[in-house]
Amino acid sequence: MRALVTGGAGCIGSDLAEALLRRGDEVVVLDNFSSGKREHLEPLTGRPGFTLVEGDLLDAGLAAAAMKGIEIVWHLGANPDVKYSPGDPTDRDLQQNTIATYRVLEAARLAGVKRLAFSSSSAVYGLQEKLPIGEDAPARPISLYGATKLACEGLISSFSHLFGMRAWVFRFANIVGPKVRRRGRTVIGDFVHRLREDPGRLRILGDGRQAKSYLTSQECVEGMLHGVEHAKGEYSVLNLSGTDSITVQRIADLVVEAMGLANVPYEYTGGEGGWPGDVPRFTLDPRRINALGWRARLNSEQSVVEAIRATVERAA
Amino acid sequence: MRALVTGGAGCIGSDLAEALLRRGDEVVVLDNFSSGKREHLEPLTGRPGFTLVEGDLLDAGLAAAAMKGIEIVWHLGANPDVKYSPGDPTDRDLQQNTIATYRVLEAARLAGVKRLAFSSSSAVYGLQEKLPIGEDAPARPISLYGATKLACEGLISSFSHLFGMRAWVFRFANIVGPKVRRRGRTVIGDFVHRLREDPGRLRILGDGRQAKSYLTSQECVEGMLHGVEHAKGEYSVLNLSGTDSITVQRIADLVVEAMGLANVPYEYTGGEGGWPGDVPRFTLDPRRINALGWRARLNSEQSVVEAIRATVERAA
Repeated sequence: MRALVTGGAGCIGSDLAEALLRRGDEVVVLDNFSSGKREHLEPLTGRPGFTLVEGDLLDAGLAAAAMKGIEIVWHLGANPDVKYSPGDPTDRDLQQNTIATYRVLEAARLAGVKRLAFSSSSAVYGLQEKLPIGEDAPARPISLYGATKLACEGLISSFSHLFGMRAWVFRFANIVGPKVRRRGRTVIGDFVHRLREDPGRLRILGDGRQAKSYLTSQECVEGMLHGVEHAKGEYSVLNLSGTDSITVQRIADLVVEAMGLANVPYEYTGGEGGWPGDVPRFTLDPRRINALGWRARLNSEQSVVEAIRATVERAA
Repeated sequence: MRALVTGGAGCIGSDLAEALLRRGDEVVVLDNFSSGKREHLEPLTGRPGFTLVEGDLLDAGLAAAAMKGIEIVWHLGANPDVKYSPGDPTDRDLQQNTIATYRVLEAARLAGVKRLAFSSSSAVYGLQEKLPIGEDAPARPISLYGATKLACEGLISSFSHLFGMRAWVFRFANIVGPKVRRRGRTVIGDFVHRLREDPGRLRILGDGRQAKSYLTSQECVEGMLHGVEHAKGEYSVLNLSGTDSITVQRIADLVVEAMGLANVPYEYTGGEGGWPGDVPRFTLDPRRINALGWRARLNSEQSVVEAIRATVERAA
């Protein structure tokens, strides 16, 4: 199988590329290194079957060239930052998620690629009254990130139907892992970074009671591979998650403990959510992927603990 | 109330602009006349409170200028053609629906406009097992039109939440009326046109058993005005429809009868749907707008009959 992994230098993309190589696929990674890192690809460079194409998905010519001979696209390239901060451009996610995805779909259509897997997000659901959230819940995104991921899903659904492309849409829980980004963008990276700068206090966004579902990048990759192999419909939407959640405050406690600290005073920025568009509390219902024979081995706390350990070790 | 109606020279937009003027609103119509028609605005031109701004929604400067002093945006500007034909550009709907809607939202945000109503479509639902379709059904669009309308909804939902903009999303049944476009784009216009060219036969797309829900433009406008007045949430999604449907073959019979013809042989192009991405059968569940005190007076057949009469009269 010849596979294209967009965003293949990202945390999840590079784990996926490695897993695909390990099972014998040829892998083309396409990345513009806007958030992906070269160090993530070091273990893959030079391995037989691995090719790196450097450039932007919004470059139609490049996407077309990268599609040559591809049998499946794993489309993970995106703006990875869920947060919108006042003053940010409001079309960043539209460009990097929705329009980039359109370009990938169009290039795949023109090249006759018939299989595409996509990294969507629990952010498409927005605020839901009923938890855990199943895939058939009505999507009401409250963030630009979630809105533009939903837009990608719609485009994929219609391309799948119109052009005979089998597609798998994975709605991820919060994904964590050893490659977690160091600074403000993820809660673990943020806490570790702040405590190394100043172990005397810890700023926590929101009221600390936000509770979300976490999954390791490794398990996320396993779930995607399993889903693509076992979900047989033309268009499948699958939550990729365990069943529980963990609060931000508990994550703070675990980071403090892992760093050998104690009694660190927490300073809350206040408010239910951590940032505009944050969904303060969610759990996903993974029964659809469970029924296909895959389930997360680690719960949210175990996933977070593993990611913290790796992050603290690397930061040491 | 000072209102901006994008797509205000269209069939529905011009009916809406007229209704708004009638109740005393100031109305700015913004249209690029790509599908809207000048003749639709003739009855409004020169009336006190009416302004026409000619230009494209994709022109950010124009959208910004048109927003000055606006209290509510009725965003109806879009590519009105649901059909995708092989060979069409695959990004027409993305540009004219999704990106145009982003530009409208961004211009509204920058101008501090706090209310926006949007013409979405039953096409966002795609193929649903359960009929009639309620607003909470999971959206699985199978057309580029439906996909890009869903993308608009996501953007509106997120802008509404992030920037404190009240929003009303109306998912229209098939809208018909006296201003129905003459040629291939709508079933009534297509049938009338073909029978005038050649009353000896009638080509029907698909197998003729497609069955859809129809509403007159007049009732659609009344429903939107009612919805905006009575739906009190920050973000409301409302089906705008009666409860029944009518088959394409029955519409053919009604057109033949209205034109004083008989025994016209039908030639079916075959297949379940009329074109790639066509949803062959649907009825919408209008209970949400019904509960707000509005219901369609005409059923699908009555709506179609009224539109046929106006179309045949005008074509005569």
